[in-house]
Amino acid sequence: MRDLLREVLEANVRIATAGLATLTWGNVSGVDRGAGVYVIKPSGVPYASLREEDLVTVEIETGRVVGGSLKPSVDSETHRILYQAFPGIGGITHTHSTHAVAFAQARREIPVLGTTHADNFDGPIPVTRDLTPAECAENYERNTGLVILDVLDGDADSVPAALVASHGPFTWGANATKSLEASIVCEEVARIAIHTLALNPAAQPPEHLIRRHYTRKHGPGSYYGNSAGPAAENSM
Amino acid sequence: MRDLLREVLEANVRIATAGLATLTWGNVSGVDRGAGVYVIKPSGVPYASLREEDLVTVEIETGRVVGGSLKPSVDSETHRILYQAFPGIGGITHTHSTHAVAFAQARREIPVLGTTHADNFDGPIPVTRDLTPAECAENYERNTGLVILDVLDGDADSVPAALVASHGPFTWGANATKSLEASIVCEEVARIAIHTLALNPAAQPPEHLIRRHYTRKHGPGSYYGNSAGPAAENSM
Amino acid sequence: MRDLLREVLEANVRIATAGLATLTWGNVSGVDRGAGVYVIKPSGVPYASLREEDLVTVEIETGRVVGGSLKPSVDSETHRILYQAFPGIGGITHTHSTHAVAFAQARREIPVLGTTHADNFDGPIPVTRDLTPAECAENYERNTGLVILDVLDGDADSVPAALVASHGPFTWGANATKSLEASIVCEEVARIAIHTLALNPAAQPPEHLIRRHYTRKHGPGSYYGNSAGPAAENSM
Amino acid sequence: MRDLLREVLEANVRIATAGLATLTWGNVSGVDRGAGVYVIKPSGVPYASLREEDLVTVEIETGRVVGGSLKPSVDSETHRILYQAFPGIGGITHTHSTHAVAFAQARREIPVLGTTHADNFDGPIPVTRDLTPAECAENYERNTGLVILDVLDGDADSVPAALVASHGPFTWGANATKSLEASIVCEEVARIAIHTLALNPAAQPPEHLIRRHYTRKHGPGSYYGNSAGPAAENSM
Repeated sequence: MRDLLREVLEANVRIATAGLATLTWGNVSGVDRGAGVYVIKPSGVPYASLREEDLVTVEIETGRVVGGSLKPSVDSETHRILYQAFPGIGGITHTHSTHAVAFAQARREIPVLGTTHADNFDGPIPVTRDLTPAECAENYERNTGLVILDVLDGDADSVPAALVASHGPFTWGANATKSLEASIVCEEVARIAIHTLALNPAAQPPEHLIRRHYTRKHGPGSYYGNSAGPAAENSM
Repeated sequence: MRDLLREVLEANVRIATAGLATLTWGNVSGVDRGAGVYVIKPSGVPYASLREEDLVTVEIETGRVVGGSLKPSVDSETHRILYQAFPGIGGITHTHSTHAVAFAQARREIPVLGTTHADNFDGPIPVTRDLTPAECAENYERNTGLVILDVLDGDADSVPAALVASHGPFTWGANATKSLEASIVCEEVARIAIHTLALNPAAQPPEHLIRRHYTRKHGPGSYYGNSAGPAAENSM
Repeated sequence: MRDLLREVLEANVRIATAGLATLTWGNVSGVDRGAGVYVIKPSGVPYASLREEDLVTVEIETGRVVGGSLKPSVDSETHRILYQAFPGIGGITHTHSTHAVAFAQARREIPVLGTTHADNFDGPIPVTRDLTPAECAENYERNTGLVILDVLDGDADSVPAALVASHGPFTWGANATKSLEASIVCEEVARIAIHTLALNPAAQPPEHLIRRHYTRKHGPGSYYGNSAGPAAENSM
Repeated sequence: MRDLLREVLEANVRIATAGLATLTWGNVSGVDRGAGVYVIKPSGVPYASLREEDLVTVEIETGRVVGGSLKPSVDSETHRILYQAFPGIGGITHTHSTHAVAFAQARREIPVLGTTHADNFDGPIPVTRDLTPAECAENYERNTGLVILDVLDGDADSVPAALVASHGPFTWGANATKSLEASIVCEEVARIAIHTLALNPAAQPPEHLIRRHYTRKHGPGSYYGNSAGPAAENSM
């Protein structure tokens, strides 16, 4: 648990050092499946002053706060829905990073435009449908999680990221660190995509190249990296 | 008063560290309503060498300098008009930040394109009308304040920011720090908006989503953040 | 002379810290009119390892190196032409800063789009005509200076900057520091202009506003800044 | 060999400090022609924790790892093909730098738009043809090297850089450091080019100016820089 708190703290601080957040706009959580809880950033606390004891522990099953004296991030319920739906997810990151938010606001998916994207995501980063007025009125954060589930259609592995329409990116991974790195990648592929589309609105890579790059880093035949086991599959 | 000087100093220095200003282009002031004065950056002094004793204290009622030996910012009269018109304003920031100035120069308001904007501003950031030749010829800085009042039409709360046409942003808040943070947010939403409009010139979020996000952070039903009282309403 | 060397060294180092140069692309010089010489960066030396004793002293009249053991910047002759033509110039900076070079390569002047520009330059930053094949073949750097003189048409004061077509910006001022600051401003107004033109290709400010801002900082009626004398006129 | 390890380590670390790579996306190698080997970054190791003993030594002739206990970069075979084909190449760098990748993804060469480009490259930075499905299926990294050879057509000197279509830039030079600097330059000319083309899609410099700038820094008549010998020709 001590390790989880430290990892979640470091991943939250890295939101700021990686340039993904203005002020306090962003949060990372990490899970302890054995204990049935996740640890998440408190609401509205600046990264520079964040300490382990500020983090909030929440029960996955019930949403009850079981550790910490502060209120969890307002987005906590969105994290919880994703943890409930996908037992393989160990960490979640939400940011308002500039270029990924631009795609979310433009209500366009981030298309696969080259190997940088394909090294990390097995397809476009999708954008959700709009929430309805009713979904905004009640249980808004929970419903935000549900529209992400809608767009994923049961598959959180191929592309560990989604853009909530007119809002911004959520990303996930095997643990808090991996989820944060997926946010870094999501922002960078969005940034490159914006410049690519300005140079060539019809840009499109060959499918066999894209496939090769994804499988080079992911799955049974992968051969990237120097660590072994499942973590290596997701390494970047 | 000691605390006010320190806060105004720190907010001015933060203009530079937050990347909002080139050279000395920008100034923050903060108010002491009890004493009927505001404290403002002196004109033309670099942020790196700025000290508390360089700050200038000005009477809100008369515009008379009552503290400090340097000349106040040339924009001091614009600050004063805003303090006179809106007793709730405790701090004002003016910068020439890149993307907000681009909107001011393009003479376009910064539209509400998503939740990042709506988390902070309850509507577009407006752009003023042009000053007339007569308004430029006499009491120019005072008249700059008056065209801001025009565009606000009595409401400085919903959107604590305005773009002076062909010039740049002024922002405000409960104190100097909050006004500076509103400038940081104004610049970032402008930057995201430019990328959004390049990807989709017709981008528009659903009104009910926008409303939800603004009220999540502002007003009686707000539930963002971990501090209590009015400051929390404006926290970011 | 000691002071001049230190100032020129510091201004050259600031090219790098202000983000105006990649690798060694850029040089500043400063003049000693009494001695009839200018001091300039040596060719191809990185900013991080530059020392006062590396700087090269050149006679304005003859172009002869009279101090230092290294070769001066290849652009030295361009500096010399400007010093000869305009006795009021005390420092010159040349960079390949990103956005100013983009305008030079696009072969477009940097138009006056708002007060940020008008606070510093009394008109568009012009772009020179092309050098002819003959002008490129012989005395190329001297001829680069001559096409700058052409476009200035005798006036180096109103706008202390010019873009050499398909090349990049040269700026100048009362001394080396002021010339460097003019390069910082030139880059920033170019950057804002690119975003402005993307938002509104027809953007244009009212002439009376522009005039007001220029005269607020320059000339007999100026009232910006806290220092006295001619330096204040050029302060930013 | 000690010196080569240190140089390759420093060049790899500089990928990160120069802002050319996200996470671990990029690798530099350097050659020891006498020993018939090159030294390259290991796969998937972060720059911040990279040590000399992590570097991998590979035989140019066979591709056999002869030093180091980690796996070499997945791109090692691409480096090897280039070292085999061009005995004059002493270092190679591959990155996913933002603006160069945008050109690669847009499947457009980086055109010569001004002297910044011409100071460094004697022509456009070419983009390769697509790899075929068969070339992606077997010996993919080797075939990536072969399509680079195709586009170079026997000349690695005029333009020490190529964009692999839908992928990104490879650059080279007399040694690891020079290859890294070519990547820095490639990224910066790509960045300036994107802004230039936005301002003027038809921008084109006069050929005689371009020629002058290239020969000023390269070949027998060059006169840029303060060091002697072949290294000076390539200095930037």
